[in-house]
Amino acid sequence: MSAPKKVVLAYSGGLDTSIILKWLQTEYGCEVVTFTADLGQGEELEPARKKAELLGIAPENIFIEDVREEFVRDFVFPMFRANAVYEGLYLLGTSIARPLISKRLVEIAAETGADAVAHGATGKGNDQVRFELSAYALNPDIKVIAPWREWDLTSRTKLLEFAEANQIPIAKDKRGEAPFSVDANLLHTSSEGKVLEDPAIEAPDYVYQRTVSPENAPDTAEHVEITFAKGDAVAINGEEMSPATILTKLNELGGKHGCGRLDLVEGRYVGMKSRGIYETPGGTLLLEAHRGIESITLDRGAAHLKDELMPRYAELIYNGYWFSPEREMLQAAIDHSQARVNGTVRLKLYKGSAQCVGRWSEDSLYSEQHVTFEEDAGAYDQKDAAGFIKINALRLKLLAARDRK
Amino acid sequence: MSAPKKVVLAYSGGLDTSIILKWLQTEYGCEVVTFTADLGQGEELEPARKKAELLGIAPENIFIEDVREEFVRDFVFPMFRANAVYEGLYLLGTSIARPLISKRLVEIAAETGADAVAHGATGKGNDQVRFELSAYALNPDIKVIAPWREWDLTSRTKLLEFAEANQIPIAKDKRGEAPFSVDANLLHTSSEGKVLEDPAIEAPDYVYQRTVSPENAPDTAEHVEITFAKGDAVAINGEEMSPATILTKLNELGGKHGCGRLDLVEGRYVGMKSRGIYETPGGTLLLEAHRGIESITLDRGAAHLKDELMPRYAELIYNGYWFSPEREMLQAAIDHSQARVNGTVRLKLYKGSAQCVGRWSEDSLYSEQHVTFEEDAGAYDQKDAAGFIKINALRLKLLAARDRK
Amino acid sequence: MSAPKKVVLAYSGGLDTSIILKWLQTEYGCEVVTFTADLGQGEELEPARKKAELLGIAPENIFIEDVREEFVRDFVFPMFRANAVYEGLYLLGTSIARPLISKRLVEIAAETGADAVAHGATGKGNDQVRFELSAYALNPDIKVIAPWREWDLTSRTKLLEFAEANQIPIAKDKRGEAPFSVDANLLHTSSEGKVLEDPAIEAPDYVYQRTVSPENAPDTAEHVEITFAKGDAVAINGEEMSPATILTKLNELGGKHGCGRLDLVEGRYVGMKSRGIYETPGGTLLLEAHRGIESITLDRGAAHLKDELMPRYAELIYNGYWFSPEREMLQAAIDHSQARVNGTVRLKLYKGSAQCVGRWSEDSLYSEQHVTFEEDAGAYDQKDAAGFIKINALRLKLLAARDRK
Amino acid sequence: MSAPKKVVLAYSGGLDTSIILKWLQTEYGCEVVTFTADLGQGEELEPARKKAELLGIAPENIFIEDVREEFVRDFVFPMFRANAVYEGLYLLGTSIARPLISKRLVEIAAETGADAVAHGATGKGNDQVRFELSAYALNPDIKVIAPWREWDLTSRTKLLEFAEANQIPIAKDKRGEAPFSVDANLLHTSSEGKVLEDPAIEAPDYVYQRTVSPENAPDTAEHVEITFAKGDAVAINGEEMSPATILTKLNELGGKHGCGRLDLVEGRYVGMKSRGIYETPGGTLLLEAHRGIESITLDRGAAHLKDELMPRYAELIYNGYWFSPEREMLQAAIDHSQARVNGTVRLKLYKGSAQCVGRWSEDSLYSEQHVTFEEDAGAYDQKDAAGFIKINALRLKLLAARDRK
Repeated sequence: MSAPKKVVLAYSGGLDTSIILKWLQTEYGCEVVTFTADLGQGEELEPARKKAELLGIAPENIFIEDVREEFVRDFVFPMFRANAVYEGLYLLGTSIARPLISKRLVEIAAETGADAVAHGATGKGNDQVRFELSAYALNPDIKVIAPWREWDLTSRTKLLEFAEANQIPIAKDKRGEAPFSVDANLLHTSSEGKVLEDPAIEAPDYVYQRTVSPENAPDTAEHVEITFAKGDAVAINGEEMSPATILTKLNELGGKHGCGRLDLVEGRYVGMKSRGIYETPGGTLLLEAHRGIESITLDRGAAHLKDELMPRYAELIYNGYWFSPEREMLQAAIDHSQARVNGTVRLKLYKGSAQCVGRWSEDSLYSEQHVTFEEDAGAYDQKDAAGFIKINALRLKLLAARDRK
Repeated sequence: MSAPKKVVLAYSGGLDTSIILKWLQTEYGCEVVTFTADLGQGEELEPARKKAELLGIAPENIFIEDVREEFVRDFVFPMFRANAVYEGLYLLGTSIARPLISKRLVEIAAETGADAVAHGATGKGNDQVRFELSAYALNPDIKVIAPWREWDLTSRTKLLEFAEANQIPIAKDKRGEAPFSVDANLLHTSSEGKVLEDPAIEAPDYVYQRTVSPENAPDTAEHVEITFAKGDAVAINGEEMSPATILTKLNELGGKHGCGRLDLVEGRYVGMKSRGIYETPGGTLLLEAHRGIESITLDRGAAHLKDELMPRYAELIYNGYWFSPEREMLQAAIDHSQARVNGTVRLKLYKGSAQCVGRWSEDSLYSEQHVTFEEDAGAYDQKDAAGFIKINALRLKLLAARDRK
Repeated sequence: MSAPKKVVLAYSGGLDTSIILKWLQTEYGCEVVTFTADLGQGEELEPARKKAELLGIAPENIFIEDVREEFVRDFVFPMFRANAVYEGLYLLGTSIARPLISKRLVEIAAETGADAVAHGATGKGNDQVRFELSAYALNPDIKVIAPWREWDLTSRTKLLEFAEANQIPIAKDKRGEAPFSVDANLLHTSSEGKVLEDPAIEAPDYVYQRTVSPENAPDTAEHVEITFAKGDAVAINGEEMSPATILTKLNELGGKHGCGRLDLVEGRYVGMKSRGIYETPGGTLLLEAHRGIESITLDRGAAHLKDELMPRYAELIYNGYWFSPEREMLQAAIDHSQARVNGTVRLKLYKGSAQCVGRWSEDSLYSEQHVTFEEDAGAYDQKDAAGFIKINALRLKLLAARDRK
Repeated sequence: MSAPKKVVLAYSGGLDTSIILKWLQTEYGCEVVTFTADLGQGEELEPARKKAELLGIAPENIFIEDVREEFVRDFVFPMFRANAVYEGLYLLGTSIARPLISKRLVEIAAETGADAVAHGATGKGNDQVRFELSAYALNPDIKVIAPWREWDLTSRTKLLEFAEANQIPIAKDKRGEAPFSVDANLLHTSSEGKVLEDPAIEAPDYVYQRTVSPENAPDTAEHVEITFAKGDAVAINGEEMSPATILTKLNELGGKHGCGRLDLVEGRYVGMKSRGIYETPGGTLLLEAHRGIESITLDRGAAHLKDELMPRYAELIYNGYWFSPEREMLQAAIDHSQARVNGTVRLKLYKGSAQCVGRWSEDSLYSEQHVTFEEDAGAYDQKDAAGFIKINALRLKLLAARDRK
């Protein structure tokens, strides 16, 4: 790879990406463009502008954007249409944010004439894969720089030395080592490393940042109604809202009731297992509600096919293949199924749990007339079931007759 | 089908199966053998013996058996090795009990020279399918009688008239109609019908029988440790127990903390959607714990394959294909994966939720050395990740280069 | 089911469906509408009109249509985009024609105010299922009449007696029993029954009707070039043609060279195994060519996903679920993959085999630069492969280290 | 990676691996152990011994073994139980041989106290992955050396110079460049590269080495009967043979009749597409025959599950994951299905095609009684089909009723 001339850096304004910024300037002597996105991580963005300016980035090379609506509309919601969970439990909160960041990095590279992008993910994690596969899939000629895989700043001490040597301001609370590492966006907060590295030991309560503990949640349950149109949430308690507003509101509700905490050991794409603490309050409500509305509006054939495709779909997102033909194929199938996934679900939130307790829809397939224990006025002829069973049993009977020989 | 001469009836001792018993005698003039099983439904069995005798069944034709250990060991535990859930949520508590009952019906038919078996499931549900497919798969020549699909006792009134006309004792509380229908065994209690038929309306609290409401659960969390060997639970809090004892104990724990309640609309195999309230306290703990122990002992490749196979496996059980070559094939694959699924999981139970908060094992694949944020002493070379990504990206880059044309 | 008042019958003009026509009139006293379709079965349709008139059908109730283009464009081609084969070998020639016939039956019923449709498939086969599932999926209120499951004309003798008693003309060659049963359309000819019922015995050569035997095929190979656009064949040897014309032409070519014969024992949806002799000359060429063009234009991820979805897709079509949400979901995924499946394939036809020997495309993903044994000018860095393997091996190494303990 | 001290080299005795042998000695100064296997590639092995001795390998460090029986029994046959084909067409002839070679390399390393293994696969292909994943899965501490990824002998000229400089004898016909590259074993011969690199151009006939062209095959068809036990071929034309003998015999038969030629563009695991010419004469017969015997002995449920699992299984083998938990899980499922796959298949071989024309078995599930067009003596009640269809249609009818709203 020839040396990059101009690099778009995914820049948070924090210490680590500030060090990367400076390192790119000194190591490659290249021009740096910064991209700072509001994905709902709950941090002010303007300080990042100041930091970037301080580090010598020209104003026209500083990109600060609120991408929360795009994030929820084009990434989170399509994923929730699939009821995607990784390894049975993880709602993919980090995974789903990476493709959007890469997309903007590549787009800004095109706008600014940059030939490279850079990110602050380490060489041990999944995020490097997600950033880079996305970038390459969107621009096969882009260069990607991953300083953590390249430099020799392999300890906290060296990083701080580099920062000091390069006049990078170090916030007081960044002097010491953080007791764990955090990633956050509108969908979730993940925490991992350090005090969490022994999977036998329960995570200390101070790790949780976005949800109260179930013990501290209100003693009275709260009900919330979520309305869906074509598989996407469109209103809460009857009030229509934009995608990002809905997720924000669901986060508040879920967080207040201690919903969506997850303590997981997962299999990383790069081969080792890692332990993470995830908080996905709004997403947890959304998944439960989406399953609820599908339960009355989705045909069994479609629903079961979705369930079978889901693990693969979730794996693709986890592994970084959002921008791949196979993810898009699965999305086409999933989206096709959502045309009539309309209606409202009622959830009960209480001390850590969020459960569907009611659902209704103009597009319901639930037929009380068919299922009733009462007289059904001929809607269903029980004798048909005899033939149904007989024909389904035929191959098993032929098999049994053969096998008893 | 020629008329049956001797029928083995799945007999609970209750009003409905007593009516069936008498109806078989009068309709077919055939000898009836009763089979009453203790599957952990929580009812005394000896009254069923008295009832059967009262209805003229010869003592040698009355079979009363405690099959709880067989149920958990040979049916529930193998199913939980797969982390089986139907339509994302249902733990298959009713589905998994039916094959065992059919197996014993067919075996008793062989022992007693009966040419038919009979069950009390209606023509609208899944259970008829499960009973009959199992029976045919085990004996292709067996006759199966499903009175609910045949007779004209299509209303409560007619049933009671038949009972009275035939001197079948009617318990006082059976005079009126039950507000909903219940099925129970050691794994779960399901309730459906009547007051539950409108899926928009929250189930009244009196429906729940095996779990306290989360609101009434203890205000203090309780931790429990479940130990696994080859994928099956073998001890609770360090104390080894038999399979049925373990499930019983887990039911107590889960029930006390309000765990395992589920309000679900599901797609029946016979085509309509139905709404059920399920209580699976012990099973809910078991699933969470099994996922927990797998998370550190199961390789990612095996785990993901299991996740992909699971929906099919669950569907097969739900639909009644326990005794089918395809379920057995999947079981062979699943069981193969469990050889090293050993270790202990720590769950936190609190007001309706059961969450894994710690897990450890002699067979752990979790490598703190590999995953650590600290120096890893060369266990992992971050530069390898660059090549990994480059090669994985190659096809996407070729695609992007083609598609931009 | 209340008695039908007006029935649209899938009418071939042959003896069997003429008997059905008359039987419907006499049994149900209902008005009959006939629908006779040219699906490429190679029979004149006008005699069917005369026959229908002779049997008293009013001219406005006689529908005769050439649906070959619709058949190939909307059914055959979409299916071939999936490379669908049932049980590894069967190209689904009969299965794919049934939904179209049902669709027209239901549409004509709507046009003519009929409340029922009828077909001439027996109760032992798959076709009854395909006809009826399609009809119900398109009109849930339609009645379907399947005379073969209802009447008592259970022997050839009784059928002929009924025909004679009702003045239905019997062609001379229909007096005796046919040595086997045939179904044909533009995609294939299937033969089964009678002389073919013992699967151990090789089918006699006179069974084959649409292909010469490989032994009698030309002694010189012929090459043919098939051009695809978006996954569908659009030209042969550079000449653009309509869908039905292309399939007709491919049938000629394949038939001449003895291609597309298949002797198969298959598992019917209704539970038993049956043996069929299939001739699919054009389809065999089309499948080979489609695989060929996909091999250079389809990304590996998309291709493998298609391969994994295919058996399910084929099973759905075989079982009669063309008009089902799950088939449509899979179709959406498959169609999404075909956007750039453009280009030309060269096949060699010779004495029963059709093999792709060349393929080229403006949209090719094949990169000689990458794959070459020669210098590749830096297109590919072999050292990347080392990292790729190391990371992929990591989980296997952790596993091996654990398992050797 | 620290420098290896003793390396077991997969050694063919040819020029390339002789250069590797010398390069290992000079580059790493390490002791070399050679492993030369007879996998049925059709070359004498003793010359390899002489070559190795000439290059200074101690006699106790020269391992020459005939592994043909192990190859077919433990690798080829298990794979054929799955009917494995990669990307619809490729019989995995190269892929399946690699794990066996790695297994022996690792075992010999253990026996001889070597700490590394080495192979002669390039950095662009799949074989490096297969060799190395297998080696790491069997011994997580083994070092693997892949000289083609390391050295600077990047052109034919440099290789020959190195050979000359190191007194490595160069056979006359190795002076010039081969027009294509070949790999062979008892299952297949593959050819690729150079004259084959343009996938638009038909492969010249001189590429084919193991099969006559269909044009030159006998003008008369030949029938062969293959007998299976538990899914594996055990006899040809009634004569029992060992696994390797059977495959050898099938190769002769298939080769004589021009069967098993394949011209394929495939997606490599390392990301690019490549074109290969494969000859798998015996394997082609074996696959057709295995499908034939399964068609009468395997239940539909088992058969369809196998078809759905197959693409994944084939992909795992292609990608080098033979020794992985997920391949073993799938194998467990597949093997479970083969318990009654016994019987005999009759194939017709003629000018490039091999087709099943008859099959019979003591374990047949084919029931002429059920399938017959004649009277079936009550084996099957056609009226059952009506109920079967009605129940299967119910969800589609509910859907249609909803969707027409």
